[in-house]
Amino acid sequence: MKKIINQTDDIIEEMLRGLSASYPGLVHRIEDSRVIAKNENKKQVALVSGGGSGHEPSHAGFVGDGMLSAAVAGDVFTSPTPDQIQIAMQEADQGEGVLLIVKNYTGDNLNFEMAQEMAEMDDIQSKIVVVDDDIAVEDSEFTAGKRGVAGTVLVHKILGNAARSGASLDELKQLGDDVVKKIKTIGLALHAATVPEVGKPGFELAEDEIEYGVGIHGEAGYRREKLQPSKDLAKELVSKILSDYDKQPQKMGVLVNGMGGTPLMEQFIFMNDVLNLLKEQNIEVTFHKVGNYMTSLDMKGVSLTLIDLEDETIKEALESEVTTISW
Amino acid sequence: MKKIINQTDDIIEEMLRGLSASYPGLVHRIEDSRVIAKNENKKQVALVSGGGSGHEPSHAGFVGDGMLSAAVAGDVFTSPTPDQIQIAMQEADQGEGVLLIVKNYTGDNLNFEMAQEMAEMDDIQSKIVVVDDDIAVEDSEFTAGKRGVAGTVLVHKILGNAARSGASLDELKQLGDDVVKKIKTIGLALHAATVPEVGKPGFELAEDEIEYGVGIHGEAGYRREKLQPSKDLAKELVSKILSDYDKQPQKMGVLVNGMGGTPLMEQFIFMNDVLNLLKEQNIEVTFHKVGNYMTSLDMKGVSLTLIDLEDETIKEALESEVTTISW
Repeated sequence: MKKIINQTDDIIEEMLRGLSASYPGLVHRIEDSRVIAKNENKKQVALVSGGGSGHEPSHAGFVGDGMLSAAVAGDVFTSPTPDQIQIAMQEADQGEGVLLIVKNYTGDNLNFEMAQEMAEMDDIQSKIVVVDDDIAVEDSEFTAGKRGVAGTVLVHKILGNAARSGASLDELKQLGDDVVKKIKTIGLALHAATVPEVGKPGFELAEDEIEYGVGIHGEAGYRREKLQPSKDLAKELVSKILSDYDKQPQKMGVLVNGMGGTPLMEQFIFMNDVLNLLKEQNIEVTFHKVGNYMTSLDMKGVSLTLIDLEDETIKEALESEVTTISW
Repeated sequence: MKKIINQTDDIIEEMLRGLSASYPGLVHRIEDSRVIAKNENKKQVALVSGGGSGHEPSHAGFVGDGMLSAAVAGDVFTSPTPDQIQIAMQEADQGEGVLLIVKNYTGDNLNFEMAQEMAEMDDIQSKIVVVDDDIAVEDSEFTAGKRGVAGTVLVHKILGNAARSGASLDELKQLGDDVVKKIKTIGLALHAATVPEVGKPGFELAEDEIEYGVGIHGEAGYRREKLQPSKDLAKELVSKILSDYDKQPQKMGVLVNGMGGTPLMEQFIFMNDVLNLLKEQNIEVTFHKVGNYMTSLDMKGVSLTLIDLEDETIKEALESEVTTISW
């Protein structure tokens, strides 16, 4: 295993130190915790998210005005503990309640729910929005139902904008549940990630092989086959996602997300193919985003997220100004 | 070779299409060219940069208000041709002249100078600032003297701010030459990049081996050795860079740059080690940046750039607001 690290036990601690020291004007770390919080808190419902580490810039990169109030980092590919989530909630709460945005994994669901109960004893009201945008497979290694992946970043943005505009906790919960239904994602991998503590890739693909539908922790996808040209990869993902909508939206947003080891050059080529296919379907793309947003350590691959943007206010929320490290 | 591409001949064309289609509100592509230009041109000296492709988001990602007016993309690791550079200059010029920011490679120097002569026939005044921040080696595979690498992005930012503020062509040339002297970079590689047309990694490193001083086209560095902990890698680069300054600056900026295949997690850990070392030296770090800015396709590795920020106006220039895809 070749990684720029020191001791594997110190990875999260040192990463959080490096991150918080690099953006002192924007965020700070709650001392002795796994929590990154924004410096300026306005009176609004607080948004807290988090999950296992290894998906950087998720979630700390999305802490800031117009997005998250705080983010909690677990160990690599491991849910943060309830006490750490509670610290984030205590820090973030401005008396208006806390909305928790959770990717749909069994461990995360349990720990965020437990944190919610603990926070209730602090008189912090909260609700949970569970993101399950990954339509590749039903039920998976760490998940009942669908997994939560890159679409989560769009949920951060849309709810962050609403929270800043004064939406109540109930309104945010409703909006979140509605928005999650509009978002669908599938990923594909060319090469698996290596978890530092394990020291070797999570799965093996042959020299000319890819896997469709791999999860962001290397969970199994739905098909392996020989590597195809980008336009054929795009065709597979676009058609699978579009056919999952009850009614094909006429206006959509596109997020092409790099998995950590995939150069931007390839992400732009893939985006070009995706846009050509959507044009053929007469779908107007009114929002675009390309880059590494929800990674899987050094995995090579991309995910494609589509979001129904027929509701113009959702598009405006995605386009609103934010002050974060990574949006 | 596993890459998300179609035909290797179409890589640059499709990348530029994907990029320009993804940010229509910010930049556009000059038809039938390799040029990405900003949508809104104000009356100011225009800044044009470019170079071989494979370093994304450089340079198109830095086109926008407060940075570059236009960027020209060559083939992978190959200088753009003079006629393409000329197109960028024609598009960018607002009658105040064009400053060309060129990384120090023989091909780039030749082609940008030729473009300069061609533009002169169009009555476009221009000057060139050559960036040679890579102190790892003197003379290299494609370079006489030192190579130009990640520090170029800081030059874009500092000169972009000055140009927007109304600096003249002569003033920008002077400022550029001064600033370049303040910036020093060294990279290291864990794994070489694979040029699509070649199909295999540019060099081979053993399972436990790294190379210090590798260039962004895989040019040889100055030493190979076994992979060390991040803090030892940081120590090597920090001490080598600091000792290259005639007088050690008391205030500095730090750019930790990922080479394309290196996760952000590792970049933050490396940044943490760099900051610890600078603190030991009583150097105050007043500007930080971490991420993939000057990549080398899918190379695994990082580069460290330090900039002397004792002149407060340089720090302010780095912190000024910009509207670009990738700053």
